[in-house]
Amino acid sequence: MINLGVLGNGTVGSGVVELIEKNVEYIKKRTGKEIFLSKILVKNPEKHFESDHKNIITNDINEFYDEKINMIVEVMGGLHPAYEYIKDFLNMKKHVVTANKDVVAKYGEELSSIAEKNGVSFRFEASVAGGIPIIKPLQECLAGNNISDIRAILNGTTNFILSKMFNENLEYNEALKEAQRLGFAEANPEADVMGYDAARKLAILSSISYYEKVDWESILTEGITEIDEVDIQIAKKLNCKIKLLAVSSKETEGVYAAVRPSFVSKHGYIGKVNDEFNGILVEGDAVGEVFFLGKGAGKLPTASAVLGDILNVLENNNQRSMFVSTAPRPIITKWKKKAQWIIRLHGQSKDKLRALVREYFKEVCEVHCELPEVYAAVVHAENEEYIDAIIDKLKNFKEVEKVKAFIRFDGI
Amino acid sequence: MINLGVLGNGTVGSGVVELIEKNVEYIKKRTGKEIFLSKILVKNPEKHFESDHKNIITNDINEFYDEKINMIVEVMGGLHPAYEYIKDFLNMKKHVVTANKDVVAKYGEELSSIAEKNGVSFRFEASVAGGIPIIKPLQECLAGNNISDIRAILNGTTNFILSKMFNENLEYNEALKEAQRLGFAEANPEADVMGYDAARKLAILSSISYYEKVDWESILTEGITEIDEVDIQIAKKLNCKIKLLAVSSKETEGVYAAVRPSFVSKHGYIGKVNDEFNGILVEGDAVGEVFFLGKGAGKLPTASAVLGDILNVLENNNQRSMFVSTAPRPIITKWKKKAQWIIRLHGQSKDKLRALVREYFKEVCEVHCELPEVYAAVVHAENEEYIDAIIDKLKNFKEVEKVKAFIRFDGI
Repeated sequence: MINLGVLGNGTVGSGVVELIEKNVEYIKKRTGKEIFLSKILVKNPEKHFESDHKNIITNDINEFYDEKINMIVEVMGGLHPAYEYIKDFLNMKKHVVTANKDVVAKYGEELSSIAEKNGVSFRFEASVAGGIPIIKPLQECLAGNNISDIRAILNGTTNFILSKMFNENLEYNEALKEAQRLGFAEANPEADVMGYDAARKLAILSSISYYEKVDWESILTEGITEIDEVDIQIAKKLNCKIKLLAVSSKETEGVYAAVRPSFVSKHGYIGKVNDEFNGILVEGDAVGEVFFLGKGAGKLPTASAVLGDILNVLENNNQRSMFVSTAPRPIITKWKKKAQWIIRLHGQSKDKLRALVREYFKEVCEVHCELPEVYAAVVHAENEEYIDAIIDKLKNFKEVEKVKAFIRFDGI
Repeated sequence: MINLGVLGNGTVGSGVVELIEKNVEYIKKRTGKEIFLSKILVKNPEKHFESDHKNIITNDINEFYDEKINMIVEVMGGLHPAYEYIKDFLNMKKHVVTANKDVVAKYGEELSSIAEKNGVSFRFEASVAGGIPIIKPLQECLAGNNISDIRAILNGTTNFILSKMFNENLEYNEALKEAQRLGFAEANPEADVMGYDAARKLAILSSISYYEKVDWESILTEGITEIDEVDIQIAKKLNCKIKLLAVSSKETEGVYAAVRPSFVSKHGYIGKVNDEFNGILVEGDAVGEVFFLGKGAGKLPTASAVLGDILNVLENNNQRSMFVSTAPRPIITKWKKKAQWIIRLHGQSKDKLRALVREYFKEVCEVHCELPEVYAAVVHAENEEYIDAIIDKLKNFKEVEKVKAFIRFDGI
């Protein structure tokens, strides 16, 4: 008999409770074990006096320390006190299933190792890309590969906003409001729109894939708040979309990792990841490219991943600990390979802007832009340092008022 | 210490040996266990006298019964004697990892249950869609879902042939020869081009997803040998591609399951699965749609899945048995839902063909076809029995020399 304690009763928490109650019989049939919802931790129990679960709702964490409770689902979110709770419960030999990317990105290694020492499970499939199976496929199915590259859309909020901007010609602020109205963005959207959420998820996936600790705070992170309709127009002219792309690759000197708005072909797999969907492209030396797509957030998709983890724990599936190396790998934030870049310059004289770009870049493919003060072009650069150096030079010209640059990823 | 016996040394077998030798150190580091290649079963040892492995190559299966060998990788293919060998080895409490879809489709349930009784693992991630993680994601990550639908491209050979026909305007026979030349099709391509291979894989995925036994031999199977350039032209005019689609859905009366050439939008995820790639779209009640893409066959992609399974066994990951219900579910072979169909009629008078189609179908959207003897249209039908009945009637008119029909799946 499994007595489950659920920490948190927000969107994901209520989804988990709903799915468990719906599947009690199935869980019994499949695992031979009965699952029993023992306690639900909420902030304000008085808000739940009409709930079907009012008898098991509490705001007292101490009730979860009861030795009868043998599995904890942590869906409260945020670093603290979630981290401390998880650590305590693992040390008390309770299995923990979490959807908390903040905790996994920062403490995943430590908590995995505490779980292992205590002979219990610490699982976090739901922490990245919601319902899409990705942690287990990387850790287990693709374990025979040397994984070299990840290119992914890991944040549904920003993907929804960028899709709205692209499809309905909305400005960023309008698209954000629409996302908030529909529940795809939080009142304070900073973690999503600034790319921090995607960076945490990229760190988790990269750590697992490269078998090395990747510190999310070292990842280059650029948000989508500066994307405007001119950027979108330029993208459309190039048959591209702008996506908040999370990219990492295993290099000899460390791990390249960056989250930033990037151009991708609108016809490729990544370019077709729309609205609140997530998409993850992984490259391994044996398997080649593998692509995963699905809903990256939301009540039931995320709860689906949590329930999958619960079932796995019930079936005594072991899970290896998250990383092997304890020292974080150096993070490379500059793209080292040849790439195309889209540059956009503002100034009073388009002719002067054009002349400058043609002077500094060998291969220039101009993108027609109606605005008289904007010159845009696709240029080639050996690496990011090269293009950064040129942009610095361009910015020194009095005729250049502003420069923006986007990397373009092809073939994805 | 794991002593491994590998049955078979063809494309996949040699890939497995290559990957294991490349990863000996990594396997040790990761699992703490040493893996040792003990024996390789081949048909003709004399052909391998120059091989690096000549000392462990044998054509005597009895050498594998040695109690020192504790894990068997079966990559010989075919039903017999692979099935008997696997059964024997499981009964001798050796773990078995296989890539053999024939055996898994027919005996998967029995072998899973024998493995369970003997406390060993029977794993077959490589049996469907090569390197794409799909068995484990369905069995474990998505286990909290009631999975209702699968739509997939599961055969790389036919997808390669159809891609060639579409992109290079080749006829079927030319494209087949090209596939054979490049090693994507076997000298006797029947199992692939007639859809049997895809039907076996669809049966495995459906059994796991619906948690019910699906007998592959009951699946409606139609091959690609009759696809001609007129079909491809019609598809192009509709912005579609023709794919050998494996489709199943869980119905109250049984499981709908069919493998046949179908029209899909060329812009959708399934339509963009090109060449030797496989793509699998799964729909669950909690997660919604999830899509998996990657190389569905080939030496290293398949070996990647085998090595993933080997690592999982070494790490003592349990795997649940394949199915719960022993009685096979009734298979429904007629599509019960509303759909668009593409029909193509041949006859001396296009006007007469047009008139007949307009008489029998309410909504007709004609597809312009240059050939004077061919009339093609998109029609709507409530279900497949309805369209079958009309086609039977149409065939009775002396003016109608031939009728072909394809179902069209949208939104995938």
